[in-house]
Amino acid sequence: MAKAKAGKPVNNGVNVEALFGAQEALKKAPEAAKFKWRATVEWVKGTHSRTTVEKFYGLGAEQKHKEKFAFDADHPEIFAAEDNAATPVEIVLAGLASCLTAGVAAVAQARKIQLRSVSATLEAGMDVRGILGIDEDVRNGFDGIKVTYKIDADASPEDIRAVVAQSQKRSAVYDIIANPTNVTVEVA
Amino acid sequence: MAKAKAGKPVNNGVNVEALFGAQEALKKAPEAAKFKWRATVEWVKGTHSRTTVEKFYGLGAEQKHKEKFAFDADHPEIFAAEDNAATPVEIVLAGLASCLTAGVAAVAQARKIQLRSVSATLEAGMDVRGILGIDEDVRNGFDGIKVTYKIDADASPEDIRAVVAQSQKRSAVYDIIANPTNVTVEVA
Repeated sequence: MAKAKAGKPVNNGVNVEALFGAQEALKKAPEAAKFKWRATVEWVKGTHSRTTVEKFYGLGAEQKHKEKFAFDADHPEIFAAEDNAATPVEIVLAGLASCLTAGVAAVAQARKIQLRSVSATLEAGMDVRGILGIDEDVRNGFDGIKVTYKIDADASPEDIRAVVAQSQKRSAVYDIIANPTNVTVEVA
Repeated sequence: MAKAKAGKPVNNGVNVEALFGAQEALKKAPEAAKFKWRATVEWVKGTHSRTTVEKFYGLGAEQKHKEKFAFDADHPEIFAAEDNAATPVEIVLAGLASCLTAGVAAVAQARKIQLRSVSATLEAGMDVRGILGIDEDVRNGFDGIKVTYKIDADASPEDIRAVVAQSQKRSAVYDIIANPTNVTVEVA
């Protein structure tokens, strides 16, 4: 495992001591580990909508972000829409990209690997005959996602690959996309 | 099926005639239906990252949004982070919310139902013992997502429920989350 260079403490900006403390605390209080994440969407016009997130539940209490965060979404002009914002499927890619990248920073910190830069490109194929209802044998979603990281760090290529693999292993969004998740949609 | 009120053309801001035209065109040219959606993520610091989307591929050519769209993500303060932005899992909820809502507008337009307002709340449970590696039997992702729509429209409750059901049936993000999607993560 890579070591910090002499006299230079590793600092990726992740407080792993606090995370290790949380691990110990939640082992003894599993009820506190039950979170509820929430979002509210408002239709704007056409395929344009705005989703906001602010409150969530965790550690046995209602929690709140420092501010309300908003996400606009729309369809592009080649789908006869106004392209006011990213598409919903690109927003999912942003969720995956950010989850894996936070994990890379946290795992590197725990392994005393100093990161200098981390970036990744994501590409997801999709046959739009699915969503357009042209062919019932074509799925609506992605036919697969490829994520390619480029990482500059004080570590060997093997250690860097191991950090990325561990991030993937513990990633919430990777799991949500790779494995089935039950979704119920109702009208109040 | 609900009808538009006499003399009042239904206008939800979705050009369904163009979408029906695309359906016909892509039936004859299935290669053009193969899209590639892309995103690029840059690590900022700690668990904070920024994902941008701009270019994609579809209709047999490289395409580009009108502008580059950016999505910041971070972890909250109760995870010992800075809460600079929404969490990656909340961003996934935004993707689902916006996909289903665009579908509601499009299906309603196709069925000549005038929408007045559409909103929904989403809630997703998650046991964070998964991502913290406390219990290997706990999954990393959501244990389920519940979406609840509130829709004011010129249609019966039954017709409104049918619009939502059809949107879910054709939703790319619903499919990505509800069904397994292959994700490969590599280091260049």
